[in-house]
Amino acid sequence: MDRSEEFKRSKAQCLGKADLSRKGSVDDDVVELVQLLNTQDQFFTTSSCAGRILLLDGGVNGFEVQKKNCCWLLVTHKPCVKDDVIVALKKASGDAILKFEPFVLHVQCRQLQDAQLLHSAAIDSGFRNSGITVGRKGKTMLAVRSTHSLEVPLSRKGKLMVTEEYIDFLLNIANQKMEENKRRIERFYNCLQRALESETDTSSHPKIKQKKNPVYLHKKKRNPEKAHGKHITEQNDEEPEYDDDPGFNINIFPEEY
Amino acid sequence: MDRSEEFKRSKAQCLGKADLSRKGSVDDDVVELVQLLNTQDQFFTTSSCAGRILLLDGGVNGFEVQKKNCCWLLVTHKPCVKDDVIVALKKASGDAILKFEPFVLHVQCRQLQDAQLLHSAAIDSGFRNSGITVGRKGKTMLAVRSTHSLEVPLSRKGKLMVTEEYIDFLLNIANQKMEENKRRIERFYNCLQRALESETDTSSHPKIKQKKNPVYLHKKKRNPEKAHGKHITEQNDEEPEYDDDPGFNINIFPEEY
Repeated sequence: MDRSEEFKRSKAQCLGKADLSRKGSVDDDVVELVQLLNTQDQFFTTSSCAGRILLLDGGVNGFEVQKKNCCWLLVTHKPCVKDDVIVALKKASGDAILKFEPFVLHVQCRQLQDAQLLHSAAIDSGFRNSGITVGRKGKTMLAVRSTHSLEVPLSRKGKLMVTEEYIDFLLNIANQKMEENKRRIERFYNCLQRALESETDTSSHPKIKQKKNPVYLHKKKRNPEKAHGKHITEQNDEEPEYDDDPGFNINIFPEEY
Repeated sequence: MDRSEEFKRSKAQCLGKADLSRKGSVDDDVVELVQLLNTQDQFFTTSSCAGRILLLDGGVNGFEVQKKNCCWLLVTHKPCVKDDVIVALKKASGDAILKFEPFVLHVQCRQLQDAQLLHSAAIDSGFRNSGITVGRKGKTMLAVRSTHSLEVPLSRKGKLMVTEEYIDFLLNIANQKMEENKRRIERFYNCLQRALESETDTSSHPKIKQKKNPVYLHKKKRNPEKAHGKHITEQNDEEPEYDDDPGFNINIFPEEY
């Protein structure tokens, strides 16, 4: 069976299976995006989370805890109010941590070129920690990840370490991150749609492919200097947000490699 | 010029340039790793950070701030004590945020196969958010990233929102993360060394490549079920840490694709 047939079979098998997640369904905010991807021959989604605010009871050394061993006191995909957290915190016996987890998506791609297109759309939409994985037998995945998170220890051995006023302040920030996260998902949807249209145009006009390939268009749009061949740092090129920017030991090297 | 010659030239050019980072040199904890990579024909590093504790004055909506616009009140690659943070916080006029930023490394790879080997070593060492980028002209980068971070708002418009006791508690967690981060860097160094040795062996014995390629060895070690072809979720396969595990909408699909 050739790769494309194999991919088709895997896609059918994957999308045919039951959703084994805790929730058992795709989050509302990413349903359209997941549908857009799964209606394309070259993609299918294997997991997704639209983004959520989580309160975890992380055992007595929460910083090390694995999900399977820790207790979820609260999970919401909607803006969260102080009282929900205060009530949930009463159940904490270990080191409770409040987290905002941004949008994450895993997409299996038919070939590397498809992953590149998707990766470019993800980066252009602000998902700076996205990356491709190529497996043992060539299985190609794109993980869409954001740098845009929050992780705040709230209690030690069940004892609350912050004030209610602080929790209110914190939730305000978490809710703002949730809103920004939602905007990025919408940006990604639009960006991807443009890229797919542009790809369809080019595949019907192979002669102008070099010009119209969305991967290139976005890179130029994203970073105007590059069009003029200026030297810029790889770090600034790849990850403008401070969240994943080491800020030092950056070497310049030729852009148009 | 063929790709391999082009890569050599870029490597020489990159490593020959001055280090334009704020610090201007590679962090002590990653010097050996960076040297190991740069002595390999198939790799060169373009940026790195060993991991650090950062106190940022994030303007009045810190959650949105870009690094270039925000002020660093404190940066350290060593364990941090409360008083350092208290003193630094006195300079905060906006929304100060304490962050632990784990190890991050960007490596340019000669070809995709080299990036796969490095990626596998990174994942096996606990750097679950690592990923490959393949650029417009085939430039192949691996970004090594951890899920292991901390981001805690401390003040609003210059007003401290937490107690000194909390800052002490927080720094204890940040310092523990720093230690764990160091252990992972060491694990990555050893894992990479084994992978490179194993690759050298196999390239001199092409017939046993399938058996000895470290990419496969590590996958099997990491996930014994896979050796028996069991169905497991992509998510659990890729990112066992809860930090980047959406926890739902996970479809099963054949492992041996």
